[in-house]
Amino acid sequence: MTDEELPGGFQTLSDLRGVAEQRLSPEVWAYVEGGAGEEYTLQENRAAFRRWRLRPRYLAGIRAVDLRTTLLDASVASPIYVSPTAYHGLVHPSAEAATAKAASAAGVLAMYSTLSSLSLEAIATAAPAGPRWFQLYLQPEFRVTRELVERAERAGYTALVVTVDAPVLGPRDRQTRDGVAIRSPVPLGNGPQIVPPARAPELKDGLYEFPADATATWEVLGRLREVTRLPLVVKGILTAEDARRAVDGGARAVVVSNHGGRQLEGAITGLDALPEVVAAVGRRAEVYVDGGVRRGSDVLTAIALGAKGVGIGRPVLWALASGGEAGVARLLSLLHTELAVSMMLAGRRSLSEIDRSLLLSRPD
Amino acid sequence: MTDEELPGGFQTLSDLRGVAEQRLSPEVWAYVEGGAGEEYTLQENRAAFRRWRLRPRYLAGIRAVDLRTTLLDASVASPIYVSPTAYHGLVHPSAEAATAKAASAAGVLAMYSTLSSLSLEAIATAAPAGPRWFQLYLQPEFRVTRELVERAERAGYTALVVTVDAPVLGPRDRQTRDGVAIRSPVPLGNGPQIVPPARAPELKDGLYEFPADATATWEVLGRLREVTRLPLVVKGILTAEDARRAVDGGARAVVVSNHGGRQLEGAITGLDALPEVVAAVGRRAEVYVDGGVRRGSDVLTAIALGAKGVGIGRPVLWALASGGEAGVARLLSLLHTELAVSMMLAGRRSLSEIDRSLLLSRPD
Amino acid sequence: MTDEELPGGFQTLSDLRGVAEQRLSPEVWAYVEGGAGEEYTLQENRAAFRRWRLRPRYLAGIRAVDLRTTLLDASVASPIYVSPTAYHGLVHPSAEAATAKAASAAGVLAMYSTLSSLSLEAIATAAPAGPRWFQLYLQPEFRVTRELVERAERAGYTALVVTVDAPVLGPRDRQTRDGVAIRSPVPLGNGPQIVPPARAPELKDGLYEFPADATATWEVLGRLREVTRLPLVVKGILTAEDARRAVDGGARAVVVSNHGGRQLEGAITGLDALPEVVAAVGRRAEVYVDGGVRRGSDVLTAIALGAKGVGIGRPVLWALASGGEAGVARLLSLLHTELAVSMMLAGRRSLSEIDRSLLLSRPD
Amino acid sequence: MTDEELPGGFQTLSDLRGVAEQRLSPEVWAYVEGGAGEEYTLQENRAAFRRWRLRPRYLAGIRAVDLRTTLLDASVASPIYVSPTAYHGLVHPSAEAATAKAASAAGVLAMYSTLSSLSLEAIATAAPAGPRWFQLYLQPEFRVTRELVERAERAGYTALVVTVDAPVLGPRDRQTRDGVAIRSPVPLGNGPQIVPPARAPELKDGLYEFPADATATWEVLGRLREVTRLPLVVKGILTAEDARRAVDGGARAVVVSNHGGRQLEGAITGLDALPEVVAAVGRRAEVYVDGGVRRGSDVLTAIALGAKGVGIGRPVLWALASGGEAGVARLLSLLHTELAVSMMLAGRRSLSEIDRSLLLSRPD
Repeated sequence: MTDEELPGGFQTLSDLRGVAEQRLSPEVWAYVEGGAGEEYTLQENRAAFRRWRLRPRYLAGIRAVDLRTTLLDASVASPIYVSPTAYHGLVHPSAEAATAKAASAAGVLAMYSTLSSLSLEAIATAAPAGPRWFQLYLQPEFRVTRELVERAERAGYTALVVTVDAPVLGPRDRQTRDGVAIRSPVPLGNGPQIVPPARAPELKDGLYEFPADATATWEVLGRLREVTRLPLVVKGILTAEDARRAVDGGARAVVVSNHGGRQLEGAITGLDALPEVVAAVGRRAEVYVDGGVRRGSDVLTAIALGAKGVGIGRPVLWALASGGEAGVARLLSLLHTELAVSMMLAGRRSLSEIDRSLLLSRPD
Repeated sequence: MTDEELPGGFQTLSDLRGVAEQRLSPEVWAYVEGGAGEEYTLQENRAAFRRWRLRPRYLAGIRAVDLRTTLLDASVASPIYVSPTAYHGLVHPSAEAATAKAASAAGVLAMYSTLSSLSLEAIATAAPAGPRWFQLYLQPEFRVTRELVERAERAGYTALVVTVDAPVLGPRDRQTRDGVAIRSPVPLGNGPQIVPPARAPELKDGLYEFPADATATWEVLGRLREVTRLPLVVKGILTAEDARRAVDGGARAVVVSNHGGRQLEGAITGLDALPEVVAAVGRRAEVYVDGGVRRGSDVLTAIALGAKGVGIGRPVLWALASGGEAGVARLLSLLHTELAVSMMLAGRRSLSEIDRSLLLSRPD
Repeated sequence: MTDEELPGGFQTLSDLRGVAEQRLSPEVWAYVEGGAGEEYTLQENRAAFRRWRLRPRYLAGIRAVDLRTTLLDASVASPIYVSPTAYHGLVHPSAEAATAKAASAAGVLAMYSTLSSLSLEAIATAAPAGPRWFQLYLQPEFRVTRELVERAERAGYTALVVTVDAPVLGPRDRQTRDGVAIRSPVPLGNGPQIVPPARAPELKDGLYEFPADATATWEVLGRLREVTRLPLVVKGILTAEDARRAVDGGARAVVVSNHGGRQLEGAITGLDALPEVVAAVGRRAEVYVDGGVRRGSDVLTAIALGAKGVGIGRPVLWALASGGEAGVARLLSLLHTELAVSMMLAGRRSLSEIDRSLLLSRPD
Repeated sequence: MTDEELPGGFQTLSDLRGVAEQRLSPEVWAYVEGGAGEEYTLQENRAAFRRWRLRPRYLAGIRAVDLRTTLLDASVASPIYVSPTAYHGLVHPSAEAATAKAASAAGVLAMYSTLSSLSLEAIATAAPAGPRWFQLYLQPEFRVTRELVERAERAGYTALVVTVDAPVLGPRDRQTRDGVAIRSPVPLGNGPQIVPPARAPELKDGLYEFPADATATWEVLGRLREVTRLPLVVKGILTAEDARRAVDGGARAVVVSNHGGRQLEGAITGLDALPEVVAAVGRRAEVYVDGGVRRGSDVLTAIALGAKGVGIGRPVLWALASGGEAGVARLLSLLHTELAVSMMLAGRRSLSEIDRSLLLSRPD
């Protein structure tokens, strides 16, 4: 049986990335994989998980493992969710529709990007049951932001994920060199009125000026709450200080994330920042984490450090490239099984039993 | 002289792995070598030994070094024992019979797997003198477990090694991809009634359900003590908590092990967990360790950290592949000589003289 | 578009070094790249930056980022300055004239080496506006030193950067093996009377004797102050002790630097020494740092650790090799934009807002 | 100019090892380079130096650097000495005669092995001025030891270096596999009555028995003092405990060494053990160190940690292979110059000015 004949196009989680690289053009691959600068922050995202050791417990009398949880008001099959990533159409013709069908069928929450290839309405239609949340890039004109939010609310998105870590794009050398971004504009499913994050500031009179959408303050949360009843999630938090501001501003959840190592090179990883954020706001809000999550045991580590939700980004694009909807379905199925197995091996029958006693920092 | 003409088929411990890889099919090699997930825990098993430095002592007036010790009630030539590994028939036609003859001739304790290629009785017949212990995978039906235990007792196995860390198999990507496991079922010497650890849970009504054999509790130790007088050893302990439960449940020894890096990726290594376990139960039970032991000096490190027995797994399969009985004999002989030399160089004439003053953690 | 058709000859900061290596002869490349001995200090210069993690802050309401600062009395476009490096003529025919034009146009301070390929007057003529500082190698005869200083003052150099870390050249194996230095003498723009740092001491009567220029003491600062009104900067400081002596001797700024890893192998890196120097003299003098600075985010790290100026050395030579004046212009433009973007992502609108709260040491 | 035309056959210290590897047969190379087991201790010997950072000081008014010191009663050109290594005849036909001429001409102390290719008398004749010390492997019969000592005393050796870390050879896999040792016996210059360290113990009645020469105690120092007036140096110390016993037994110096990583794999490196030994006996005896010394700056590090002498082993064999006497002369000259340059760059005019304030442990 060749890879292509496998359901989803790949066999194990270890194979997935390689399969995707083979199926994508170098340009798209550079877009999917590339991080900021020399990409050492990207590498650290993975390394951060390897700094922890798990202390498994046995003979715990577990007949079944329960991965189910809630993310805000959504009941989900597991804490694993699909992180918002732009332009699914770059890696598969079915684009976000395939992602949505697979995620929804698996009972997995998916966040869809402002920069989706399909319109947010088309995504909702593809998988009406959801659950789905809308990731919002603040727009230069609040009017456009408001329209997006209202459309999302109408289309059954049940939370608004406000990304705060991309007032401007990080210096993505690999994309610049090999990527699609500079070759041709990528169509935006949500309409031509959408403005992606600025690529760079402009030098004027000795100052580096940023476009209006980059200049928001924490007050924007209040403004959003005026125009929507959707709960707010703030994505891109890496400090206790910002976590407090987000929750003070009404966020019901925060995503601890360095944007897949694509923004500020040298930024702390989501996993490394997680304990600080959980300590700061964990009693008042839900805390999610993303960046470098590749295996079921990674999810265990994140949960043990206090995450309630754990996002996967690039692997979804890899799976989509590998086998469209079937690829994403297989990815989620493998991750869920692996998480269940890891919990069994760790002696934890439900997520609530996963705590810090499961972890040791790696001996050096 | 070619490798094949060498007694045992290899010259030095450094050569052994490469010789074995050449002699085995890729499928079997994947089975022998593979660990869980991305195999970084497997790599850590070896790295753990390199985090320690030895403080040798000289001019100690040593005429002879004594490696002899006891493991529970067995007098053995050294603390090195053969860890239980499944399916020796995959790597050599003489299977466990070759292993047993070599180990017994060397005065080395060997543990034989429930999943041996030969029946436990055939193994006993091959090397009647032993010493041999029987490794038990708990079976879905206790009746089957009981039959196995009774057969082992009748066949002269002198302890029961209850493996607790495999209620389900870890995610062994290399095996899945290249391995034998998925191609054809491997015959079980102990009979078709034996059920190997489950490969995965089943998703039912939102729960990941595991087969009955996976769901045991520590009470199983009591149940086993009711059906056998054999001393109990619990294998797969990685925490002080589980070590206490094992000993409280009647175990006379525990094996600190992460199952050769094949179960939970990210699990602490046996060597790293050893001090915690020794501190918790070292006065009430014997503590053994396995995982990453490759050289005589590794044994010294493990003993210095409190191990009374030190298991070798993959190297036995490598040696069996390299030269059958002669290969295993050579492996044990090289390891014993190297341990004796290491003790001489460390100024320790017997195992009881090996203590923590021999060790420093590596300067970083 | 090929690299050569790009403005400046390269596309991203990640590409620059490779482009330069292709354009230079192996001899010149060895000269540019080589460090002392086995070059591990050279590698550490880069690694030092990767030991820090940045804690970005968002939604800070930043409309524009201001990189402007002063270095002593010079108003500059950013804290990034061109470190003094010898022999620009080796990498591009326009030599320091190209560097000067690009730096001046960008509003960037440049320090020019005593060992420049063009005369200090020619450099001043190429870019009259500056700002430019003169890097001084103390000469065996103070008369020659004095002449150089007077020429620099007349030509509009506004500070004197006294290099103290090269009383003799470090053991530059790569240069010795592959380099230009041993093949033919490189012409000195400032005249044949200039004596470069000694290559080695001479063994005489059991002592290793160094030339007179190597034997200066801190009193030389007083002597220089007698012959010039230019402010003194001492370059090559790696300890609090030397920093104090420099400032006690009248230096208005110190450059924390290990000379690009070219002098004492094993020397602490500039970045690692920076906190100690800032603590010692930061209130009395400006502190600059160089060594391993390659990206905008590196500048952020250095500023957060207390640097007021941040020097770049090899990248300027790479850019000069890649595209002459246009290359250096592109380098400075990319670095400035990246620094502005990094500050935006870090939530800092001006250099004065960059403090230690931005940094964490890397978790190990 | 090709390498062979260079004086000594090599250009820089970085080149030396490669040149030697090209000139030697694989068998001899395996003998020269090989360490114990998997050779990670060998690698650590080099890595140990890279865990330290130097804090250079400048403008110290140094006209000349003085490397001269004494090692016991010998006045030497520098603290660098030639460590005893066996069988120089394997790498160059002039054997120890070439080494002796070069060392003596450079004013460098050399220690000659019991297992030299030339007789100790022939070595003395080759370079009558010395200084030379005799390295002693204790012989199974004290009569043979005594004869050796008396011969050494008569031949003008001025100290006795008693090696204690080789009661038996370490497990040298590379030598076993590729080396000369197993192919043919290497002739011993000091006569056929000499017995090299045992290759392995013999298993008898369950004990691993070592030959008589391996079984000495610290009392052997007293016995040696009865038969010679030569000062005793004990080589192979890695702990404070053994250092105290050596000095209590009359040793006037100890060599902190793990025998070039050739004996106990996992042993602490000489450099890492140095501070502990200096603290224990530094006031009562001289302390030397060897293992991994390759550059002038390494010598600086060792001196700063308290070493009075610093031995080089493999580099001498490399240099001998490269160019015989001229090779060793060049090696010593390069090392001396580099040490002088390093001291100049560190602001130290003599060895007595090198102290711990020069060092920082590497930031991690």
